[in-house]
This record gives sequence, C-alpha cells and structure tokens, in this order.
Amino acid sequence: MMDSRTLAARFFATLEGRQWNEFAALLDPDVTYEIPQSGERILGRDRYVQFNSEYPGDWHLTPKVVVADQDGASVWFDWTLGDGEHSDAVVFLQVSGGRITRVTDFWPEPYDPPPGRDHLVERS
Amino acid sequence: MMDSRTLAARFFATLEGRQWNEFAALLDPDVTYEIPQSGERILGRDRYVQFNSEYPGDWHLTPKVVVADQDGASVWFDWTLGDGEHSDAVVFLQVSGGRITRVTDFWPEPYDPPPGRDHLVERS
Repeated sequence: MMDSRTLAARFFATLEGRQWNEFAALLDPDVTYEIPQSGERILGRDRYVQFNSEYPGDWHLTPKVVVADQDGASVWFDWTLGDGEHSDAVVFLQVSGGRITRVTDFWPEPYDPPPGRDHLVERS
Repeated sequence: MMDSRTLAARFFATLEGRQWNEFAALLDPDVTYEIPQSGERILGRDRYVQFNSEYPGDWHLTPKVVVADQDGASVWFDWTLGDGEHSDAVVFLQVSGGRITRVTDFWPEPYDPPPGRDHLVERS
C-alpha cells in the first residue's frame, strides 16, 4: 500500500507524464476534487482524470516542497504553461487506504505589496 | 523540543492570541518570511514579529488542515478581518532544531471558473 509521500510523488510524475491509467490507479473511485477559489468541484475518478487529460496547454508541474503524514500530503509546486512563465501553486491530498480520496488546489496570483510595511520588507 | 505539528499549532494559537513573546519563542532568530505572490521577504525574528504585531485589522486565523512531518508543516487555514468575510490561505513552515526557520504564505483570491469544463464541474 502506497503511503502519502509516495502517492504525492506518483501524482505529480503521472500527471507530468500524461500517464492517465497510472494516474487513475492512485485515486479512490469516489475522489473529490475542489478549487476553493472558483467554488468548482469534480466528483469521481473518471471525471477528474478526464478533467486533467482535457486541460489545455503545454502545462508542466514540478514539486518544490512536499510535506506528508499519515493522513495526506501538501505539495508546493511550480507550474508553467510552457511559455517561460512560472507560478507557484499548492495542492492538498487527503489519503485513505492507500488511495487519494480528496484533492484541493490553490492557484495564488501575483499582487503588489500593500503599503505600510516598507520598513520591514525586502523585495526578492 | 517541539515537533513540527506542535510548532504549527502553537504558531496559530499565539498569533491568534497576540502573544508576541510566546510567538517569538517558536521562531529561529534568523527566520525568513516570504510571500512569493508579492515578492516580499522579511529577515529575522524581530522584524517578523513586528510585522505581525503591526498587521492592521481585526484579523483571525483558524487552521483547517494541518500536514506535518519531520522537516516542517503545511497548514490550510481560514482567515477573516472580522467583517464576516472569510478566505482560505496556506502557510508552509520549515522546522529545524525545534524552531521555525522559514515561513512562506500564500493568499489565493477568488476567481471565476474558466470556460470549457462545465461538463465535468459542479459549483459549491
């Protein structure tokens, strides 16, 4: 039975490789996918695999930080549409019985620093 | 020595309680705080505690999902400015020697669902 850390690694490897059968094998048949920012939810493995396989663009995902425990994992990853632009995103994976039962994505967008904290902050 | 899960719980409890001395005690003196979305970075415990103590508004933070392992934690939390509006945010805590050495925040904002996936998606 795969643990959370292995499932997280395989999740990214199979997505990146467009290995849809291997990707599906990591998922519980009743997996729930959610994007809280848009209020979107996809129910079930078949629809979620289809969602990923239909996702447009030459996207690529690279894990940067993986935190994993018995109940799941959180991965901070870099994503790009193959146009040279990169962004950070975060996924939480809930795991039960060696399968991924819930996937929650966050897609934070760049913003300008708010005023009033220049005395403490550097810009990277 | 506090482990990552305990440090994450204390991090939120002391922030929420404005217990600045207790909050500072969780942090490495050379802690780095970063917000990748704005490119902001704050170096050192003193400045980072000041940043939090000066942060305006009646903010409240409630952890929703905590993932923790030996090297750190990731927390999906609810935040509000006390005006009834809620949002999701994510923090990654890097831990070494029983102290928090790096804090990285993500503040995702709501967006409209992109077109082309209505055949798979429900709205929550």
